[in-house]
Parts: sequence; C-alpha cells; structure tokens
Amino acid sequence: MDEVPGSLGTSASFALRLGQTLFSTASLFFMCLAIDFYSYTAFCFLVTIMGLVIPWSMTLSLVDVYCVFVRCPSRQPGIMTIIIVGDWVLSFLSLAAASSTAGVAQLLLTPGSAALLCPLKHCNRYPLSAAMAFLSWFLLFASCLFNIWLLPKL
Amino acid sequence: MDEVPGSLGTSASFALRLGQTLFSTASLFFMCLAIDFYSYTAFCFLVTIMGLVIPWSMTLSLVDVYCVFVRCPSRQPGIMTIIIVGDWVLSFLSLAAASSTAGVAQLLLTPGSAALLCPLKHCNRYPLSAAMAFLSWFLLFASCLFNIWLLPKL
Repeated sequence: MDEVPGSLGTSASFALRLGQTLFSTASLFFMCLAIDFYSYTAFCFLVTIMGLVIPWSMTLSLVDVYCVFVRCPSRQPGIMTIIIVGDWVLSFLSLAAASSTAGVAQLLLTPGSAALLCPLKHCNRYPLSAAMAFLSWFLLFASCLFNIWLLPKL
Repeated sequence: MDEVPGSLGTSASFALRLGQTLFSTASLFFMCLAIDFYSYTAFCFLVTIMGLVIPWSMTLSLVDVYCVFVRCPSRQPGIMTIIIVGDWVLSFLSLAAASSTAGVAQLLLTPGSAALLCPLKHCNRYPLSAAMAFLSWFLLFASCLFNIWLLPKL
C-alpha cells in the first residue's frame, strides 16, 4: 500500500492533528479569557465548534501515534470515509465560526462602537481567537485533502 | 463520454448556475438596499464576493446554454480544473462572507445594541442577505462536487 504523506497513520498526519489540537485549544483559550463571550452568538458558535474539533483531532492524533510507534491496522474504506466526512464537516463549520467571529470582532473593535460594546479592554483577544480558528480550519482542510487522496488507493 | 448530471454542459448544471446567479444577486440586492453597509467590513466583504460570484456563474451558465442548445465542445481536463478550482475558492469565500455577515447581522439585531447601531430599521435586510449568500454557497459547492466527479472520467 502506498503511503501518502499526511494521510491517517503517518507522522505528517500526526503533526497536522497536533497543530489542529493546539490551534483550536488556543482559539478556545483566547475566547474564554474574555469573560463576556456568551453574550454574542458568533462567539458561542466558535466555542461549540472548537469544543468539537479538540476531541476529534486529539483522538485521531492518538491513532496516528499508535500507528507510527506500535503497528498500523489495515485502513478500511468505511472508516476512512467516516474520517474524511468528519474532517470535511468540521472544516466547514470551523471556517464559518472563524469568519463570523472575525466579523463580530472587527465590529467590536471599530473605534465608534468600541466604547459602547467593549468597555473592559477584553476585545483584543477576539481577533486572536479568530486567527487561531482560521489556522485550525486550514490544517483540518489539509488533513481532509490528504485522506481523500489516499481513498482511491484503498 | 459519460454525462454526470450537474457537470459542465448539462441542463442540471445550467439550473445550478442560474440558482447561484439568482441567489447571489438577491444577496447583493438586499445588502445594497441598506444604505450604510459600507461602514461594516463584513458587509463590504460580502458585496465583494457576491460581485465575483455573479459574473462567474453567469458566464458558466451561458456556456451551459450554448452546450445544451447548440453543440458541446470537448471538455479538456485543464479547463475543467480551472473551473473546479474557481468554484472551490468562490465557495469557500462565499461561506466565509455569509458567516461573517450572519454574525454581524445577529449582533446588530440584538435588542440591547439595536437602538444604538441600527436606528434606521434597515437591519432586517442583513439576515436575508446572509441567507441568500448561504444558498449561493450551497449551490456553488454542489457544482464543484459534480465537476470533480466528472474529472477522473476525462
């Protein structure tokens, strides 16, 4: 079986999954540092999606570690399809969450409205959180593409 | 050559392109009806992306009409790849634009801030515009998938 770098069970895939976990945890961290995130729907959406991405990426990174260091079970097309669909859906959701967070953060940081909506100087963390979510989306999308590339070879 | 319904040059593809053109025009229309859209970055982004989607979908719908009623030139893998990449990029951009518009529109329609940010009762049009942009994204993504399906058969 050909090894596609970045597909399930390779060290490149482990690096991608680790990056996803780190960036989505950072995004969640920056968002939850700002105490009043739950008053904005977009921010709650981001927290929900990052709360889905973190366990997903962490589980798959453990699978990669097991595969690299112990032994790799045969990849079945059914399981690969589930992983691809999961990556696909989560990458769309994290792009949507990152975009809406970026939109709202930009609005909150506009000089005219900042004094009204952001009195506590917490708002500089929102764009950081959105940026981390964008990076997480990018890595999820890369994982998805590498796994799709592998699928016809199974 | 197999005909994949929805791929370039079929009547289903024409229907998809027509839907994209209609929904993105509607999204642009609802956004531009509200006079002060240019004070929000997310709304300017939506207007830019919809301004790209409309000519793209309209051109490809004309190609489909020519293909259905006159004669279909042979599909070259290079041209199909350009169309797929274009659909792909535009579908990501329109998802991002629709999400950020939805996030900002929701913030503007929140009862607490509505009186400050939306004094002119224009704001009900923003969610409509975001909904149209989501529909346009969905159809663009469908076109992209159908064309990818066709690519290995060329």
